[in-house]
Amino acid sequence: MFTNRRTVRIEWGDCDPAGIVFYPRYFEMFDHSSVLLLEVALGCNKLELYKTYDFDGYPMVETRARFLIPTRYCDEVVIETTVTEVRRTSLHMRHALLKDGALAVEGFESRVWVVRDKHRPDRFRPQPIPAEIVKRLTATAPP
Amino acid sequence: MFTNRRTVRIEWGDCDPAGIVFYPRYFEMFDHSSVLLLEVALGCNKLELYKTYDFDGYPMVETRARFLIPTRYCDEVVIETTVTEVRRTSLHMRHALLKDGALAVEGFESRVWVVRDKHRPDRFRPQPIPAEIVKRLTATAPP
Amino acid sequence: MFTNRRTVRIEWGDCDPAGIVFYPRYFEMFDHSSVLLLEVALGCNKLELYKTYDFDGYPMVETRARFLIPTRYCDEVVIETTVTEVRRTSLHMRHALLKDGALAVEGFESRVWVVRDKHRPDRFRPQPIPAEIVKRLTATAPP
Amino acid sequence: MFTNRRTVRIEWGDCDPAGIVFYPRYFEMFDHSSVLLLEVALGCNKLELYKTYDFDGYPMVETRARFLIPTRYCDEVVIETTVTEVRRTSLHMRHALLKDGALAVEGFESRVWVVRDKHRPDRFRPQPIPAEIVKRLTATAPP
Repeated sequence: MFTNRRTVRIEWGDCDPAGIVFYPRYFEMFDHSSVLLLEVALGCNKLELYKTYDFDGYPMVETRARFLIPTRYCDEVVIETTVTEVRRTSLHMRHALLKDGALAVEGFESRVWVVRDKHRPDRFRPQPIPAEIVKRLTATAPP
Repeated sequence: MFTNRRTVRIEWGDCDPAGIVFYPRYFEMFDHSSVLLLEVALGCNKLELYKTYDFDGYPMVETRARFLIPTRYCDEVVIETTVTEVRRTSLHMRHALLKDGALAVEGFESRVWVVRDKHRPDRFRPQPIPAEIVKRLTATAPP
Repeated sequence: MFTNRRTVRIEWGDCDPAGIVFYPRYFEMFDHSSVLLLEVALGCNKLELYKTYDFDGYPMVETRARFLIPTRYCDEVVIETTVTEVRRTSLHMRHALLKDGALAVEGFESRVWVVRDKHRPDRFRPQPIPAEIVKRLTATAPP
Repeated sequence: MFTNRRTVRIEWGDCDPAGIVFYPRYFEMFDHSSVLLLEVALGCNKLELYKTYDFDGYPMVETRARFLIPTRYCDEVVIETTVTEVRRTSLHMRHALLKDGALAVEGFESRVWVVRDKHRPDRFRPQPIPAEIVKRLTATAPP
């Protein structure tokens, strides 16, 4: 499966009065990591993706995270994101946030490939993920 | 000119390791205060506004803030927002964030009524503010 | 078990280019809901808690959320937070974010009562939750 | 005067339903740019600074920004931060956020070197900036 890594520097504004990262910030980091993985795997960004395929997004449907080691302002961490499964309409990833090589935060996410519901345009409904995208996400390296 | 007030509770996640509000959060508060003032003054929300008038937003073009008294988790503050001037294509407001009645943060903002540029759809250009909106924003109370 | 409810207005700045809430914002809302539940249940805020008890926080160790119905700018939602379990050193809650009465987002969280490790002050270790706090969190209403 | 540059990638979660950066995010970027400039200029991070000097922070007292060109998800921008003036107790900086070489956002900030007031520990009062720090910030390059 496809994997992508990036280094993130913890910012002053990411941290709370206890001096540790305010945990919703980890989900912001993971969201951007997912976006980057898809860009690298698919060779195009989210906006280009919307133009290329007839779909309306891949919203999060479920996410989970475990917080093992606190991180702080000035820590430099590595986020390793891996596609763990690609099903007919859903896409699953794991994020490992490493501090000094140790697993500090572990995140899991499930997203669904969707189109807007014609009858209720404020709602989305699942749609099969295009074959080419499945192929690229389940490859081990970018084409 | 039109004025609107709201009470805001400072949250744990608004504050940084020094225990005080991370200042970009004040701008988030002010932005929401501006949105609320327009809703009350115009009697409709931002989405309805887009449907009613042929325009593409009222982005911020300049903002300024002075930070006089720090605020912290659990402080209950009042934000008083006032339209200070409405020009042909621009809209000016002042936010006074009060802690125990004293001015803690003062913000000023200038927004421009815009439409998308036909030749460069990623850019906006100023457009006169509709007369009815000018009338309502320069009134002292909602209709 | 103790329950607390609050109404939240979705802000323009909570939403992403797809027009729906950027999901990390839900965790910010849930965090504040947890803080408020503890304030109401314990009759004191987080800072007073630190002064009353010899501990160093109740950081999140695991959280999970399911996203069922998208929410948007101007939606008014209700967040219902319930203590689901209080163990020796850990505290578990469920958040139900309701839109027009329907479950839109469901969040689960596990926090641990901690003290700083004497030998590694940048790390925390679990500590039994004081009996009085257990009693209040497992009650059905504030004293 | 000291100058520092960094490249920033605009994230999906930085943008609002209009598809452009929600302007408070620029202040988050500028805050981190200031932190980085001080780290490079002083050769130590904010936490080490607290240990080295007897002070309690350098909070923002006034900031201002002009928004000239909108930026969007996937834009790669450069932020150029320069110390513009160092007074007895205050520190002034300018941030130029460049998109394709053009000035997109310009920010100005004034911070004050402070200590906690002994009589009102929730307030801060100005304190002269240590001579060595003045020297480094007014130099043109790191030592």
